[in-house]
Amino acid sequence: MIVVGVDIGGTKSLAVRMNDAEVVEESRVELDRSLSALDAISRSVDSVLNDEVEAVGVGIAGLVRQGDGTFLWGPHVLGSNLQIRTEMSDRFGMPVHVDNDANTAAIAELRLGAARGHSDALFVSLGTGIGGAVIINGSLYRGGSFAGEWGHVQVDRDGLLCDCGKRGCWETLASGPALVRLAREVVSVNPDSSIARLLGSSRITGEAVVAAADAGDEIARALVTDVGRAFGQGLANLVAIFDPEIIIVGGGLGSVGESIVGPARRVLIDAVYGGKVRVPPTVRVAELGPAAGAIGAALQAAGEVR
Amino acid sequence: MIVVGVDIGGTKSLAVRMNDAEVVEESRVELDRSLSALDAISRSVDSVLNDEVEAVGVGIAGLVRQGDGTFLWGPHVLGSNLQIRTEMSDRFGMPVHVDNDANTAAIAELRLGAARGHSDALFVSLGTGIGGAVIINGSLYRGGSFAGEWGHVQVDRDGLLCDCGKRGCWETLASGPALVRLAREVVSVNPDSSIARLLGSSRITGEAVVAAADAGDEIARALVTDVGRAFGQGLANLVAIFDPEIIIVGGGLGSVGESIVGPARRVLIDAVYGGKVRVPPTVRVAELGPAAGAIGAALQAAGEVR
Repeated sequence: MIVVGVDIGGTKSLAVRMNDAEVVEESRVELDRSLSALDAISRSVDSVLNDEVEAVGVGIAGLVRQGDGTFLWGPHVLGSNLQIRTEMSDRFGMPVHVDNDANTAAIAELRLGAARGHSDALFVSLGTGIGGAVIINGSLYRGGSFAGEWGHVQVDRDGLLCDCGKRGCWETLASGPALVRLAREVVSVNPDSSIARLLGSSRITGEAVVAAADAGDEIARALVTDVGRAFGQGLANLVAIFDPEIIIVGGGLGSVGESIVGPARRVLIDAVYGGKVRVPPTVRVAELGPAAGAIGAALQAAGEVR
Repeated sequence: MIVVGVDIGGTKSLAVRMNDAEVVEESRVELDRSLSALDAISRSVDSVLNDEVEAVGVGIAGLVRQGDGTFLWGPHVLGSNLQIRTEMSDRFGMPVHVDNDANTAAIAELRLGAARGHSDALFVSLGTGIGGAVIINGSLYRGGSFAGEWGHVQVDRDGLLCDCGKRGCWETLASGPALVRLAREVVSVNPDSSIARLLGSSRITGEAVVAAADAGDEIARALVTDVGRAFGQGLANLVAIFDPEIIIVGGGLGSVGESIVGPARRVLIDAVYGGKVRVPPTVRVAELGPAAGAIGAALQAAGEVR
């Protein structure tokens, strides 16, 4: 079966066309902020559409109501109350499945990636924020609709303001923007430091800080480790809550691998409640890379047709 | 079927003998700290045992390994690595089921109490600490073994030291001991305050502070509200994670009802991520009172025989 999956972020989208479990085309679209979110989704679908496509899946960052495929709200996406399923079904004349982007990425990792062979797993997406998904008995556990929004667990009562408007959410300490904030701080305090010279005068990005760390810069490495430790502390919270066998770490920052996940894994052992008597979970980096969200959306779309 | 259930705390235990779903005898035993934990369990079972009893269930505060019914460790209980199931089966010559006390209380509330008729629910026990249980599809979700230990989610990075040895766990802010700590602080700063006169010179307990609040003392009410709000903030974290339909609040302090649960419920609406678009969960006080843990243990014991 030929299906399309798209993953819609705040500033870009990624689309795939799949033939059963195989990606046959992939396309990255920069989203023009002047486009409505629905037009952005359409454009992204169009970029890989052909006559053989039978269904479309959409993953989007934020709260999606499963019942009617409506995107309700998300702090990183413009627009709210978007009736994506209805609108896209009308535009493309085929079944459309809509889900939270962490859910779609988790489905992809479960079927084709790092969670293959597990019936229970947590998927934690670390990027602009922290999202996630709970896999129980081989399926997504959604609760009422929005389970897995643990990026907004408050871990620091008087902490930094979060994009969601609350203070001290986990993602204020562990995310791409958190890493950028730390790097900016160092660069502004010490413009002659090695990291300042490495990052230069251009806009600092999380990727650039990780690259500097991986290239051996000690300061960059300390910052990445700091974010990795804050990430691991939050994983310890999830372990106290779920006692999972395996945690898959994905997302733009999570996918960079050991420079972030290593410190998280190490802090987890010490930070978790009952660490001495627990079997610590396996913490594994996602395997499908940035396309996971789109791939999972496509797999869900295929499920709509079967 | 006639079965016995016991709930073992740090300083006291509660035992019930049940005939199917009906409690026919109940007994409260103060635990002498000189007794070994296994002898304390035996004594508690003995207090309601008769010749018709076919099985024994044990609920205990801490980490229990389901596979072999071993109590591994808990911050509020003396002893660790207790092979309760094996030892008690030998002593009483009948099947023994061992579980975490919040799990047993949740089972009781699910079958006979406030969660009746729900297939998915969170049970949150608020007392000396915070424990809990996850009900999914009508059964306990245990993860590897120890799911629901959310009292040890770190909500305040530089916060107070917890009984578990870590800092800023949810239960450092929301628990009986947290309420006592606040009351002591007020009384020591202002020994002429109304609450100081109400509580007198005897040892301050959480129950006494709640009683003073319910009797109309404004300061006591403010303290109980403060703990209730910290409790509600943590519930908001659980809602972001599970998006549950219903949360049952039990335990010694949780069971006092609206003076604690009211402020928690109110703060939840404002503190939860995506509160505007979420259907807020029902937060209901447990119905079975302090015997819930023992009743659930008995129900699990009956399941061992059937």
